[in-house]
Amino acid sequence: MSSSSEFNRSALEQLLGKRFFYAPAFALYGGVAGLYDYGPPGCALQANVLDIWRKHFVLEEDMLEVDCSIMTPAEVLKTSGHVDRFSDWMCKDLKTGEIYRADHLVENVLEARLEGDKIARNATVVVKVDKDEKKKKKAAKVTAVRLDDAIAQTYKEILAQIDNYSGPELGELIRTHQIKSPEAGNDISEPVVFNLMFASSIGPTGQFPGYLRPETAQGQFLNFKKLLEFNNDRMPFASAQIGRSFRNEISPREGLLRVREFTMAEIEHYVDPVKKNHVRFSEVADYKLNILPASVQLQGKTDLLSITIGEAVEKKIVDNQTLGYFLVRIHMFLTKIGINPDRVRFRQHMANEMAHYACDCWDAEIHTSYGWKECVGCADRSAYDLTVHSKKTGEKLVVRERLPEPLVEEKLQLEINKKVFGPRFKKNAKAVEEHLAALDESALEELKKSHESAGSFSVSVNGEAFDITKDLITSFEKVSITTHVREFTPNVIEPSFGIGRILYCLMEHVYWTRPEGEQRGVLSFPPVVAPIKCLLVPLSTNDAFVPVLNKVSAQLRRTGVSSKIDDSGASIGRRYARNDELGTPFGITVDFQSVQDDTITLRERDSTKQIREKIEVVVELVKDMCEGKLTWAEVSAKYPAFVSQEVNE
Amino acid sequence: MSSSSEFNRSALEQLLGKRFFYAPAFALYGGVAGLYDYGPPGCALQANVLDIWRKHFVLEEDMLEVDCSIMTPAEVLKTSGHVDRFSDWMCKDLKTGEIYRADHLVENVLEARLEGDKIARNATVVVKVDKDEKKKKKAAKVTAVRLDDAIAQTYKEILAQIDNYSGPELGELIRTHQIKSPEAGNDISEPVVFNLMFASSIGPTGQFPGYLRPETAQGQFLNFKKLLEFNNDRMPFASAQIGRSFRNEISPREGLLRVREFTMAEIEHYVDPVKKNHVRFSEVADYKLNILPASVQLQGKTDLLSITIGEAVEKKIVDNQTLGYFLVRIHMFLTKIGINPDRVRFRQHMANEMAHYACDCWDAEIHTSYGWKECVGCADRSAYDLTVHSKKTGEKLVVRERLPEPLVEEKLQLEINKKVFGPRFKKNAKAVEEHLAALDESALEELKKSHESAGSFSVSVNGEAFDITKDLITSFEKVSITTHVREFTPNVIEPSFGIGRILYCLMEHVYWTRPEGEQRGVLSFPPVVAPIKCLLVPLSTNDAFVPVLNKVSAQLRRTGVSSKIDDSGASIGRRYARNDELGTPFGITVDFQSVQDDTITLRERDSTKQIREKIEVVVELVKDMCEGKLTWAEVSAKYPAFVSQEVNE
Repeated sequence: MSSSSEFNRSALEQLLGKRFFYAPAFALYGGVAGLYDYGPPGCALQANVLDIWRKHFVLEEDMLEVDCSIMTPAEVLKTSGHVDRFSDWMCKDLKTGEIYRADHLVENVLEARLEGDKIARNATVVVKVDKDEKKKKKAAKVTAVRLDDAIAQTYKEILAQIDNYSGPELGELIRTHQIKSPEAGNDISEPVVFNLMFASSIGPTGQFPGYLRPETAQGQFLNFKKLLEFNNDRMPFASAQIGRSFRNEISPREGLLRVREFTMAEIEHYVDPVKKNHVRFSEVADYKLNILPASVQLQGKTDLLSITIGEAVEKKIVDNQTLGYFLVRIHMFLTKIGINPDRVRFRQHMANEMAHYACDCWDAEIHTSYGWKECVGCADRSAYDLTVHSKKTGEKLVVRERLPEPLVEEKLQLEINKKVFGPRFKKNAKAVEEHLAALDESALEELKKSHESAGSFSVSVNGEAFDITKDLITSFEKVSITTHVREFTPNVIEPSFGIGRILYCLMEHVYWTRPEGEQRGVLSFPPVVAPIKCLLVPLSTNDAFVPVLNKVSAQLRRTGVSSKIDDSGASIGRRYARNDELGTPFGITVDFQSVQDDTITLRERDSTKQIREKIEVVVELVKDMCEGKLTWAEVSAKYPAFVSQEVNE
Repeated sequence: MSSSSEFNRSALEQLLGKRFFYAPAFALYGGVAGLYDYGPPGCALQANVLDIWRKHFVLEEDMLEVDCSIMTPAEVLKTSGHVDRFSDWMCKDLKTGEIYRADHLVENVLEARLEGDKIARNATVVVKVDKDEKKKKKAAKVTAVRLDDAIAQTYKEILAQIDNYSGPELGELIRTHQIKSPEAGNDISEPVVFNLMFASSIGPTGQFPGYLRPETAQGQFLNFKKLLEFNNDRMPFASAQIGRSFRNEISPREGLLRVREFTMAEIEHYVDPVKKNHVRFSEVADYKLNILPASVQLQGKTDLLSITIGEAVEKKIVDNQTLGYFLVRIHMFLTKIGINPDRVRFRQHMANEMAHYACDCWDAEIHTSYGWKECVGCADRSAYDLTVHSKKTGEKLVVRERLPEPLVEEKLQLEINKKVFGPRFKKNAKAVEEHLAALDESALEELKKSHESAGSFSVSVNGEAFDITKDLITSFEKVSITTHVREFTPNVIEPSFGIGRILYCLMEHVYWTRPEGEQRGVLSFPPVVAPIKCLLVPLSTNDAFVPVLNKVSAQLRRTGVSSKIDDSGASIGRRYARNDELGTPFGITVDFQSVQDDTITLRERDSTKQIREKIEVVVELVKDMCEGKLTWAEVSAKYPAFVSQEVNE
């Protein structure tokens, strides 16, 4: 958006609160960090964005949408690795007991020291006075102390890879750099691990632990077999889920960007690990993205590479077509809902910051006043999840693919004489038999040599040696084995959307203020996502306007366009200003002429330009613009501008 | 639905599982009672039902939809009464530790005894063999023992009001009637209270208890002030919310009917307590409902009364117009999505079964193979919630209404002399002053008499007597007080929908089997809620059909109709049978003639009748039928029936 002034976050936040897009939950009770409620416009915005998401991904690609349980037995999340590894590091002020997220603490203190150094070096730097003291209570105090050049450089290097430290490494940093609690200056404990899942207990016995799901993915994986069957066993395919997930963050911050409860939209796309091409890749090959590969970041740089996805995949910067296809589809989606495409980049994860289940991950990051923020993750989870669940439960989670030609292979086969085998090895018989059955071709060939030359061979099972003599073997020959079916565990490509984060970024991107006055904020949502599409205003509270208003309102409703009548006594300008803040793209005014000739004026939010046409024409135009079939530029080119005396703002 | 045979629940359940409408969650891990996942058709069905709900209620009545936090601080639910009173009674088998819900235990054992009595009295009664042993493991064993007539009668009376007992009363029943654990026959503990909320802990300290919300209502109440402001302070108005809620049931049972996690849709309609009329009541006054008032049930009867809502409100059977208006709107909604209106009744709660917050409640109950089941509650919560939250937090939750005429009243006013008052009563001064300020008109008049005759009067504050002598009072006279604004706490009428229960009832109501063969199940969803609207089948896997198929598919998508191509090798009859089970209302066949002349056949699911028309015509017809603008009866009256040799089933 073109803006008449610099972006002013606190003005935007004030507007969003005043118009109840969202608000801290339980505010009457003092609120709870990281929990938010969406009011009517926020709720409608979210519904519209989810509707587009569903059309853009689920319907367009025939994905199988599911709706799974949030409450999850602990055993499932133990298997998936979340109980052991889905955690952050926290440490305590040893005197006050105040708790800090370890990486945030180190970051805050070192940033404050660098800031103090800057001031000490250059007296003209003005220390920003923070009006919002309460919100930043965990920011460290800035004191003008000059640092040694080498130390300042070390701090900068630490900050550049702050996401990349383990807990013990953070503890080391705290000790080495004598980091204390920012408010009280007290000593800090060693970082301890804190699991980010909300724990609960299922049923009346108290003996069945559960967690609130930290992602919607596990429910999809557990239904893999039913979904594959539903898809008539065809590959590749994807499941999808929209729903609430929970993360018990140590210190929620930055409004909707880091919260404890959030709506996600996740896709699990199952592919053959040896065929990661995508049938529709050619449609997107020429699409250009701004990307930031891991290799660039490891050099300490953040320069973006603008490249077509075709080239990126060809050069193996992006691993495969399916991953590349989804990166483009994600970018298209974000653009469609109104995110500024110039403020989107795809950043590849570095090895240490990857989630425990991922083997590669690209984040769609959106630029905001808080910096670049991860809003969509696109991870290659490989066969991790299906493998661990299958192993734990004994249920095969595989795809069986009929081979076009039966596969005939010559393989060494060792058959044992069970009658002798059992009595000879007794309790070890089963283990030895299993060991022999699990040997691969080359191992078998080695043993066969010994079997033929020495008449026996020896194997070591559980640290004990067993001699396999000739009488234990009935045959040990090459046989021809025919396979008709190939069995494999599919890999999963997972685009995962944090809806609340995307909504916040969107609100930042579409916010601007009219040059006329600083208080006149506008949210220029594209019509397709705008919470309310059309405002209906009678010129005054005169009863004569009511029948026309009702007629327009009914016609809009019939075409599926949400509208709102504002028949308050406020001036038309004031009523339009109110709706600029709600991001309502169109306004219809009913005046005395309307009563005479059934014409109404249509105002577009961003330009504030108007046209005047018959009701039927205007309703049709609004509908087409809201469905994205027509633009205001096209409308204003075709219909004459209307300049009204009455509705001067 | 007309059915060729008796309703067969296990056949329906098998169908719903096979087509993955829903399935027990975490089945790979043995499942968890009361948790379910919705597969693709169940998820689409739910989305369509919620879409209709939103249009029928939220859009039609301009409700303010919100989306609030599920995780809720304990303090909020303490205030709302849920921590103390949202519970069931459970008891334990004293030997095995097995846990029972107390009322279910009494019910099961007494029902089994009555069944045994029936058998003992009449040897010809055949004991039903339950094939589904596992599911019913908590049902009590039936033994043919004849009961004394008086005892049998007592049991029947207990069962008729089983919902109406308190915990101690259930304990009394267990002792009096020597109820033991059904499987082992062991002694049973006294019932103890079990809170039905899932508990958790918010943040890293472990010192901030929270619960998963048991209803979406509290989030709406806490935002009352912001919502009223959003509505420009106009009354009446309603907020609405669709979302997940959680109840840690002691013994979940009956599939989707009693679960631990569920999607609700709730409306909180705020009304002036002295004006509970509804502006649109006249539109529904003649609508007839089947109702079961509390007074009838208290006589031990369940006879339904068929009555227009106009008459029911006039006779005060239903308390007010707003409650009556919503009962009708609920009935219309249920009918619209395909619930059989003859199997819906509205039952009024009896005093003891009412939730702690309600002063009146009517349940929309739907008849199923499990009996009548509560699916929508319509409660009058009076001013309960707003009052308790306001009292707890000190925040005024009221409506301020400008009076049409200022109200002038003569009122006694007592003014004290603070200079004397403070020194005289010292630390008690404030309490005494507040006591005096809180006195009502009649109390003041009493005191004034004593003040004038005896020169003083005495008040008792916190158990201590204080003498108010003349020197403490500056004036004690009638003064004229003018009020311009009336302040009141609104009452809340709350229609609350259990979406999963409604979906299950719907699936029962639309299920039937074709007379041709017992395995041919059909789900006759109305087109508007059907998960998939249209099946596209090529006559065979011949490539010639692909272009026509793609053309039809694209045209359907453009009009917003969800379709699915089934180009598997199965016979056309088999493919249609599969889609009967998914409840797909329309089927389009592409054959060799289609390739020649662009015509396709359209088959309707319930009648299996077909017509044959040009693609454009068929697409338009399907669209209109899916939007409820046209019926198949109208279509088949207008277009000639097509009888195909090729697609014989």
